Amino acid sequence: MRLAAFTADGHSHVGLVDPTGHTITALDVPGAQAAYGVLPIIQALAEGKPLPAATERRFHVEDVQLNAPLPRPRRNIWCVGRNYHAHAKELSASVFKDNDANPEAWPIVFTKVPECVVGPHDAVHVPSEVSEQIDYEAELAVVIGKGGKNIAKTAALAHVFGYTIVNDVTARDVQMRHQQWDMGKSFDTFCPMGPWIVTADELDGTRTRVRCWVNGELRQDGPTENMIFDIPTLIETISRGITLYPGDVIATGTPAGVGMGLKPPRYLRAGDTVRIEVDRLGAIENKFI
Amino acid sequence: MRLAAFTADGHSHVGLVDPTGHTITALDVPGAQAAYGVLPIIQALAEGKPLPAATERRFHVEDVQLNAPLPRPRRNIWCVGRNYHAHAKELSASVFKDNDANPEAWPIVFTKVPECVVGPHDAVHVPSEVSEQIDYEAELAVVIGKGGKNIAKTAALAHVFGYTIVNDVTARDVQMRHQQWDMGKSFDTFCPMGPWIVTADELDGTRTRVRCWVNGELRQDGPTENMIFDIPTLIETISRGITLYPGDVIATGTPAGVGMGLKPPRYLRAGDTVRIEVDRLGAIENKFI
Repeated sequence: MRLAAFTADGHSHVGLVDPTGHTITALDVPGAQAAYGVLPIIQALAEGKPLPAATERRFHVEDVQLNAPLPRPRRNIWCVGRNYHAHAKELSASVFKDNDANPEAWPIVFTKVPECVVGPHDAVHVPSEVSEQIDYEAELAVVIGKGGKNIAKTAALAHVFGYTIVNDVTARDVQMRHQQWDMGKSFDTFCPMGPWIVTADELDGTRTRVRCWVNGELRQDGPTENMIFDIPTLIETISRGITLYPGDVIATGTPAGVGMGLKPPRYLRAGDTVRIEVDRLGAIENKFI
Repeated sequence: MRLAAFTADGHSHVGLVDPTGHTITALDVPGAQAAYGVLPIIQALAEGKPLPAATERRFHVEDVQLNAPLPRPRRNIWCVGRNYHAHAKELSASVFKDNDANPEAWPIVFTKVPECVVGPHDAVHVPSEVSEQIDYEAELAVVIGKGGKNIAKTAALAHVFGYTIVNDVTARDVQMRHQQWDMGKSFDTFCPMGPWIVTADELDGTRTRVRCWVNGELRQDGPTENMIFDIPTLIETISRGITLYPGDVIATGTPAGVGMGLKPPRYLRAGDTVRIEVDRLGAIENKFI
């Protein structure tokens, strides 16, 4: 199923998107919960509770405002750096220059603050007073369903609730000058997410394709099979000694083709539009202002 | 004032600690809110609401279980790396080896997950299956009161609600092998916090002293005046383009004397006890098991 968070008639709702992607049926979720999008549902399902019942209210997708499916994640979003071979290569002289010689040694894991999440069609504010190097990173994101600690690779996919898309927007200059990346990744509005969550029974995140266009020009195109660390390995790694919770988000890294990797680099400016599509998941498209 | 979160008679409470530190008067806070410790009070005060009224219930501190004042922060805790001159030097060949030549260039900022917070006397679990290099970092932590973005250094201290102590427990081997530090800092129970929050009108965090003992042996002793980046600078830096919220925690870095900096290094083992004291704030003491 596809679970979306949306605003219609001035209220927050959570609903089921039909297979064509054209209509959404609202679920019977109290308004205070609906403000957290799909998160309370993921938590309830993890506790063995049922999916809220469908209501009689059906909306056309184009008549509603889609919100991020997790508009306010329960804690910072886990993000993986340097996780596609070609991307590791394109930034080997800049972002990844201090890394180990062996790029397969250990995943690089950092975070983005939950409050930087915005919806799949919301504007991203360019913090021009802080950065001159704003870049896009198209990513498939894993949403954890069943929590756990020390999850074995072989059991990891059973902990996945579903998948969504994020743009791991990055201020490259800030990312590098602070050495640790969380700040350069966490500016307000720096995490467009959506358009919805597709549950793991309908989408195999380990075999799909991530593409990104800037102003209509294809910049990134990577099959998730090309990840250096596959999704089970990422879940095993992050859960070693650290409990994962229902609703945790793991952004799995970006393919080659980011602005910094072009020669010369091409950074985003106010007025640009970034579209990200993941096969069988959908698309998000955000204007930078 | 000193605000503590505690458990007594099987219930969560928030209370005011008297100036001697011997008794706590419970405030009139609903149980569901009290589970979040001082956080809902900080948020309410930031909205201009009054402090909850004192009740008639007074407890002896030794009769209650003190909890972390923020047992579940609203998002990951901001942490500053390499923020005392002598500590920058002691780890210059290991943790900080890839850093810029100029240690004053920009603060290093990373995060710890909120769920690794434990109380001021709780046990810390050594994740021996993941790490052989568990280390302590005694730190003064700033708790944000009034939120904001692009907060100027000159206005920064007006955004401080108060101060508390954290032990930024670190798995050095994990910290370094993942290059980004969030994971090596975020193992379950890796953030003892407490014993309470002292409000900014009673404690000037910019002029106090942080000390740490391991099994009774003094290891760290640093005045906060020796910080490379002072507290106003940290608030200005982190809030550039990133909104800070009431209840945000910024751990301000650790003085020299961590286990990794000793020759030879001395890491923590199950059975060790780490005590951290900050002048005019109090002490936390945690057994590693």
